[in-house]
Amino acid sequence: MMHTHPEHKYAPYPVLERPQRRWPNQVLSQAPRWCSTDLRDGNQALAQPMDGASKAEYFQYLVEIGFKEIEVAFPAASSTDYDFVRYLIEGQHIPDDVSIQVITQARPELIERTLQSLLGAKQAIVHVYNATAPVFREQVFGMDKHEVIALAVAAVTQIKTWCDAHPETQWTLQYSPETFCMTELDFSIAICQAVQEVWQASAARPLILNLPATVEVNTPNVYADQIEAMIDALAIDAHTTISLHPHNDRGTGVAAAELAMLAGATRVEGCLFGNGERTGNVDLVTLALNLYSQGIHPQLDFSNMRKAVAMAEKMTALPVHPRHPYAGELVFTAFSGSHQDAIKKGFAWREMRPVNLWQVPYLPLDPQDVGATYEAVIRVNSQSGKSGAAWILQQNHGLILPAYVQKHFSQCVQAHTEQHGQEISIAAIWQLFRQQYGLHAVPTWRVQDYVYDAESGVLQARVHTEHGLESLVGKGKGMIAAWVHALSTWREQDVSVLHYDEHSLGQNTHSQAVAYVGCQFDGGAPVYAVAIEQDASKAALQAVLNAVVLQAPALKAAV
Amino acid sequence: MMHTHPEHKYAPYPVLERPQRRWPNQVLSQAPRWCSTDLRDGNQALAQPMDGASKAEYFQYLVEIGFKEIEVAFPAASSTDYDFVRYLIEGQHIPDDVSIQVITQARPELIERTLQSLLGAKQAIVHVYNATAPVFREQVFGMDKHEVIALAVAAVTQIKTWCDAHPETQWTLQYSPETFCMTELDFSIAICQAVQEVWQASAARPLILNLPATVEVNTPNVYADQIEAMIDALAIDAHTTISLHPHNDRGTGVAAAELAMLAGATRVEGCLFGNGERTGNVDLVTLALNLYSQGIHPQLDFSNMRKAVAMAEKMTALPVHPRHPYAGELVFTAFSGSHQDAIKKGFAWREMRPVNLWQVPYLPLDPQDVGATYEAVIRVNSQSGKSGAAWILQQNHGLILPAYVQKHFSQCVQAHTEQHGQEISIAAIWQLFRQQYGLHAVPTWRVQDYVYDAESGVLQARVHTEHGLESLVGKGKGMIAAWVHALSTWREQDVSVLHYDEHSLGQNTHSQAVAYVGCQFDGGAPVYAVAIEQDASKAALQAVLNAVVLQAPALKAAV
Repeated sequence: MMHTHPEHKYAPYPVLERPQRRWPNQVLSQAPRWCSTDLRDGNQALAQPMDGASKAEYFQYLVEIGFKEIEVAFPAASSTDYDFVRYLIEGQHIPDDVSIQVITQARPELIERTLQSLLGAKQAIVHVYNATAPVFREQVFGMDKHEVIALAVAAVTQIKTWCDAHPETQWTLQYSPETFCMTELDFSIAICQAVQEVWQASAARPLILNLPATVEVNTPNVYADQIEAMIDALAIDAHTTISLHPHNDRGTGVAAAELAMLAGATRVEGCLFGNGERTGNVDLVTLALNLYSQGIHPQLDFSNMRKAVAMAEKMTALPVHPRHPYAGELVFTAFSGSHQDAIKKGFAWREMRPVNLWQVPYLPLDPQDVGATYEAVIRVNSQSGKSGAAWILQQNHGLILPAYVQKHFSQCVQAHTEQHGQEISIAAIWQLFRQQYGLHAVPTWRVQDYVYDAESGVLQARVHTEHGLESLVGKGKGMIAAWVHALSTWREQDVSVLHYDEHSLGQNTHSQAVAYVGCQFDGGAPVYAVAIEQDASKAALQAVLNAVVLQAPALKAAV
Repeated sequence: MMHTHPEHKYAPYPVLERPQRRWPNQVLSQAPRWCSTDLRDGNQALAQPMDGASKAEYFQYLVEIGFKEIEVAFPAASSTDYDFVRYLIEGQHIPDDVSIQVITQARPELIERTLQSLLGAKQAIVHVYNATAPVFREQVFGMDKHEVIALAVAAVTQIKTWCDAHPETQWTLQYSPETFCMTELDFSIAICQAVQEVWQASAARPLILNLPATVEVNTPNVYADQIEAMIDALAIDAHTTISLHPHNDRGTGVAAAELAMLAGATRVEGCLFGNGERTGNVDLVTLALNLYSQGIHPQLDFSNMRKAVAMAEKMTALPVHPRHPYAGELVFTAFSGSHQDAIKKGFAWREMRPVNLWQVPYLPLDPQDVGATYEAVIRVNSQSGKSGAAWILQQNHGLILPAYVQKHFSQCVQAHTEQHGQEISIAAIWQLFRQQYGLHAVPTWRVQDYVYDAESGVLQARVHTEHGLESLVGKGKGMIAAWVHALSTWREQDVSVLHYDEHSLGQNTHSQAVAYVGCQFDGGAPVYAVAIEQDASKAALQAVLNAVVLQAPALKAAV
């Protein structure tokens, strides 16, 4: 089957020998500084990039959910981008605590136009990058290492000169060696040191060293090693920040960011739901909400996840996958029986105890924390066990099925789903339940009224049938015993009640009651029935009567 | 903005103190044993589970792409599942080198029915699990640790007794402590040791200890630590395999599997494209293809990725996301100008050298290795630089634009995409190019024929215009110089040629030639034009004539 061996044309990227690494001993303890690149790195990867109006709307939303740093444009690349920066500044759309960031290649004319776009900004991050990885130096630019460093130094010098001349703006420089993860470590160190040397970071002029994995080329632990090695090699003072910019080519962008945060990085660039070139930039939604389960506030607000999804889908015209962590429509849903059973027990356990900590089986996050309901938690199909349908009846109708009804009904549901081959809806479960247990709006035979004398044990009751009103009399120790006696006499068959359960629906004296019974007729197989009435006793009588009706067709067939 | 603090209701799961860890020093060196759980763990998570026919079709496909172990059913849970196992065995649909696997809970009646479903199988893996994590012990089962171990021991004893009585089948036991990643490590060790003790693994009766992260609850390095600690604690002989079963709740399922493989696990269970409950089981497609870039053959064949996507989408009714690693429709696509430029140079560099190794900027995998073409690699919109459109013309029409045309045309494309706000198609780029440079099927003015006497430098040519055939004469050192002279005389304007390039289209003597020119008229702005002709000289003449036509409207307007 395996005729070709394409693996021979791939050489793994080198890893670091770093037995002194410390990051695997760390745990996450705080949220990083977030930088959204949705308006730039994300936007450049769309078949239909956002227009100015869309970028303005998305910018507002990103601010609303808590981003304090937003890369808004590549001003020298297109007039749309340039104009958008001017719109933000001239229209005073940037809150005082938010910094816009703009990106440029390390070319004098592009830097010049980029800086011009920022005139009048209160604060701004100028993000300059040049190619440092061997594959770029060799194939794309034909430059040696000295030339590459000289390029970075010239760019930073040009920016610094401009900043000195424009003190009305609070400037931050961001420098990215592209692509850091594929660049020789000593060269990354050397070029970052050269940049540090020129910029001279201070409280007034901070520096961000952004270390991109623009293409993921190794397991995520290697990126963490590289980040830790950079931190060890560079003089990282209070004015210098190590920032991450992971992509997701190997499907490990989130992990790479997390491990690199363990390694000491304190800032992460990415996009909502992992938009961006090819497999996307790292997904900031997942990264942020992953912090919750570590007991850390993410400093981004995704309490209205539906809005976040709707906004991203509108802006990018790309879907959020149904299984996307925290956001997909299926991620809080259990179809499997054993999962449903455990979740149901977890909720019940939680209800009975004053627990604060969230510990529900198979639900790492409380759906309500992202604005979802518990409705979608359990959905029922042929893979669901006895708990699923029972849970849905409880959640939607307040019914707490006794074990024998739960077991019996789950078999009905299983037969139904296997026959129809698909998920059964909440409404269809309710309909099936009513039909199965004689729970009709107007019962076929109806208990009209009754008088029970507890002392004598005599029950008199009137029942509506298709033939009109019939009077029944029976006697027994307790109303149900008397009722069984009355029905046995009336139907000329041996009626007995094997199971009987009842509970109120709702929590006040005017609540209805629901009765569940399992009856036997002439020693045959059990017949289960249910009734709901305002009067609890009447519910019990009606439930048994419903059982009589349910077994009637069989009775008739036998005659 | 942050009014609530839901993070306070989450306590992080404990991590291991394990400074002696070795896995971060390892690199991946071989593919693991793969086990597909698409037909079971994946299937149970679908709103519409597969019917028997679909499971049969998917089974065939999984075998076809190389799976040797396939979990096919939970036979005791539904008749569909039981019947499917019987269908596979009785229909002899299982190749000799493929093992089916079935799962059961550790309950005697379920184990019994599970084993019955396997009667007559050549080989089979019986996968039994019970709940070991505190949250399950406490909330779901109300069992203490001794009871939980006793349950596992009883289950394995029951299975072993059956296997002894049915030696016609080659049996493997798989045991899973559920959920391993949330279970106290010493308890996981104790219960696995108890299982080992009962089963007594041998060449004839191998054992798989499967360690699920059914819910991801920590950064992926913690899972690797846990796996390495298990391997260190248990006596893992040649007949015992440590298997992984990661999920993706934190978006780090692939990373968790990779790091745990570094830690010594040699088998991975998962689904194609990460199907499975909630956020899905780990994605085996990504895991497998990640091995390529490490120079390792994955032992699964995804050379026809389109088929894999189509099959999974048909079976699960779930989409594969456009940015899904290796498989999404956008993952080999670059829209951004700088990425396109680098890719284009990478391809050019590759063409000129006898390189075997794949090292193209921004393309970690050769698209052809998964059956994709280079067509989708570069798509053009307003974010694309000068390379994108040029690449598309080269790929689709063989045109190698000289730098001045490339620059000029990219401005035309940028204006077009900014105006229309969306991606420009290959066909639209070609149409824009033809219109822009006068490259019409029938040129407005057409060079009919020409005679050039190289010795005298005299060129005589006839040109079709809207007024009929006109004869032109000019003189110069070389045909183009003579042609410029002829045109200047004819048009009564100063015509000069600033740039001229020409190359053949195709690789034989009957190939057409394409000529590019940049002309100046009366010292005005350059006018670029292109012509394609069978005769290379005629192409040059026609290109200059096209430039004359292109500037004509301006000329007329000026008069």
